Amino acid sequence: MSLENFAIIESTLREGEQFANAFFNTEQKVEIARLLNAFGVEYIELTSPAASEQSRKDVETIAKLGLKKTKILTHVRCHMDDAKLAVDTGADGIDVVIGTSSLLRQFSHGKDIPYIVDSAVAVIDYIKSQGKEVRFSSEDSFRSDLVDLLTIYRSVDKIGVNRVGIADTVGVANPRQVYELVKTLRGVVSCDIEFHGHNDTGCAVANAFCALEAGATHIDTSVLGIGERNGITPLGGLVARMYVHNPEQIRAKYNLPLLREIDNYVASLVSVDVPFNNYITGFTAFTHKAGIHAKAILNNPSTYEILNPADFGLTRYIHVAHRLTGWNSIKDRAEQLQLNLSDDEIKRITAQIKALADEKPITLDDVDVLLRGYHSSTVGRDDD
Amino acid sequence: MSLENFAIIESTLREGEQFANAFFNTEQKVEIARLLNAFGVEYIELTSPAASEQSRKDVETIAKLGLKKTKILTHVRCHMDDAKLAVDTGADGIDVVIGTSSLLRQFSHGKDIPYIVDSAVAVIDYIKSQGKEVRFSSEDSFRSDLVDLLTIYRSVDKIGVNRVGIADTVGVANPRQVYELVKTLRGVVSCDIEFHGHNDTGCAVANAFCALEAGATHIDTSVLGIGERNGITPLGGLVARMYVHNPEQIRAKYNLPLLREIDNYVASLVSVDVPFNNYITGFTAFTHKAGIHAKAILNNPSTYEILNPADFGLTRYIHVAHRLTGWNSIKDRAEQLQLNLSDDEIKRITAQIKALADEKPITLDDVDVLLRGYHSSTVGRDDD
Repeated sequence: MSLENFAIIESTLREGEQFANAFFNTEQKVEIARLLNAFGVEYIELTSPAASEQSRKDVETIAKLGLKKTKILTHVRCHMDDAKLAVDTGADGIDVVIGTSSLLRQFSHGKDIPYIVDSAVAVIDYIKSQGKEVRFSSEDSFRSDLVDLLTIYRSVDKIGVNRVGIADTVGVANPRQVYELVKTLRGVVSCDIEFHGHNDTGCAVANAFCALEAGATHIDTSVLGIGERNGITPLGGLVARMYVHNPEQIRAKYNLPLLREIDNYVASLVSVDVPFNNYITGFTAFTHKAGIHAKAILNNPSTYEILNPADFGLTRYIHVAHRLTGWNSIKDRAEQLQLNLSDDEIKRITAQIKALADEKPITLDDVDVLLRGYHSSTVGRDDD
Repeated sequence: MSLENFAIIESTLREGEQFANAFFNTEQKVEIARLLNAFGVEYIELTSPAASEQSRKDVETIAKLGLKKTKILTHVRCHMDDAKLAVDTGADGIDVVIGTSSLLRQFSHGKDIPYIVDSAVAVIDYIKSQGKEVRFSSEDSFRSDLVDLLTIYRSVDKIGVNRVGIADTVGVANPRQVYELVKTLRGVVSCDIEFHGHNDTGCAVANAFCALEAGATHIDTSVLGIGERNGITPLGGLVARMYVHNPEQIRAKYNLPLLREIDNYVASLVSVDVPFNNYITGFTAFTHKAGIHAKAILNNPSTYEILNPADFGLTRYIHVAHRLTGWNSIKDRAEQLQLNLSDDEIKRITAQIKALADEKPITLDDVDVLLRGYHSSTVGRDDD
């Protein structure tokens, strides 16, 4: 089952460069590549050497870094000229792509299926003859004719392509549809299967997971999901999803505490904030607020937490200073402050906190002042 | 099929209040309720009147607004005291919740299944006797024992509950699992089925969609997805997903151009930025950058766009000033500037733009200067 043996193709330096705000200079690209290698992704995908002269030089530079964990891929259109440029960069593998949907055939490159198969076979044969790993991918696979798609993929599988790619280029696919297409493809080809999914309708992580369930072997990600439009499957989102499926596997595969630095670094390079609701590294990912949640978390964190923040070098925060608070949380806070108060006293203070928090936002200081004030007045009475 | 006839239960004023930064005063709650009514959501869910005195008054205030499109719900624990408070607010319906997972039974409320059934039946009977709509929901449904869950749901269905709710309280569920559980439940109860999903592992939109595919009828959302931890299914994400499934239905059901104002308003109230990659209203949701994408978009927007920005009162942006640009985009820009240049000239200028953009980030002004400079030098030569 591919869920237990998948690889990440990290495409921040290819798909991510297509994000509106992205401009990575060579030094920044090298730093991203080093961080991703240290995190442990299996592949890094780089912008086509045909895109610009500096893009070509940057593939060469990164291919020469000699990264220990991570193979270097570059991504080109299905043209022999581009494939030759790519091979010459010294990358470990070449990802070849062509649009197969009737819309793209009509409005983008205008090619028909036999032409696509012929040019794919020529390009793949050439790349293999140069001793490189090669992937062939369609674009917009979910709006392509199924028979066309399977025809092309079977043809390239027969000549020994290492991997075929399914791409939801426009973010139209839904999870069960992805599962069905990958399952069908799994029965037709014997090579590896890669999934690339855009997030326009919020399914990019779920679709990647369903692709793996159906037999895909490789998932494309980018840091924070950056890419065309609102982007693709985010690295952190996929890691969260796979961690929940098999925590031991994910802790063993990846250097999880590095995720926050990677998210922050890329966010700063492309001048965005890490979204408040980002997976794992968003500022509230491990914040618990409602009284009923806080009570259970205090008893056993796994009641409301399926990701252990400590595995990511992060900490849990139980937010107690608000009107949804409960007396169990306030009791826990009193114990942190080493204040000895009875349950009845805690319940009275909790009611006061709720009344105060009904009027305006309050802080932990306000809670502490109430707790300490009540405690000292009680202690005072005892002294009388 | 429920995909064609679903309702949104908008929970910004309940789940959203559990977001770390959320403190809504009465005026702000009323404004959110009015906006959501104008958008056209079928239900608004409000914080329990038992949470605090102001929470109770706010349910009364919003229930009295007489919103035309939107029914008012409030959300309480499965206790008779809470249910009575809720009925007295004048809300249209009461959402009742109890934890059914063994973890929650052990570490939160400590109740067993027969006790849960008995108290649920009593509370539901009471709420129905008061002429209110009533929903019964489990918490943490995906870590609950299936037989326990179905036993409880069949019991409450038999006594005429309007709706049962499945909740992925911890964000652990994956799409095919949601589909299977809802499908099974659909065979056991005849009442409506609601789905509430957290987004810890990036599946909240996809899981909601799969729930509808399996026969669910109601989906919980919040604006920007705000809620406990990193939140739940976002309103905009669900709308994007459902629009792609059936654009006519979604345009007819909801006032789509209001979404941006709603996202911006709630973001400002809870002191966060709308995430850069937010569905529909994120700042790059309709930005196209890579040359091959831009070319196809210029020929036919539906090549790379499954959401029509005009339906949301938004506009498309084709980003041409960067090294991944293509000559078709530059030609289109020249035409916008009413500069008459041949394809060969455009290709030469495109190469210059790529060279410039290899060195540093460039702007549309830089492109325009190059295009105008080339054009005037050509016009100059013609004059000689």
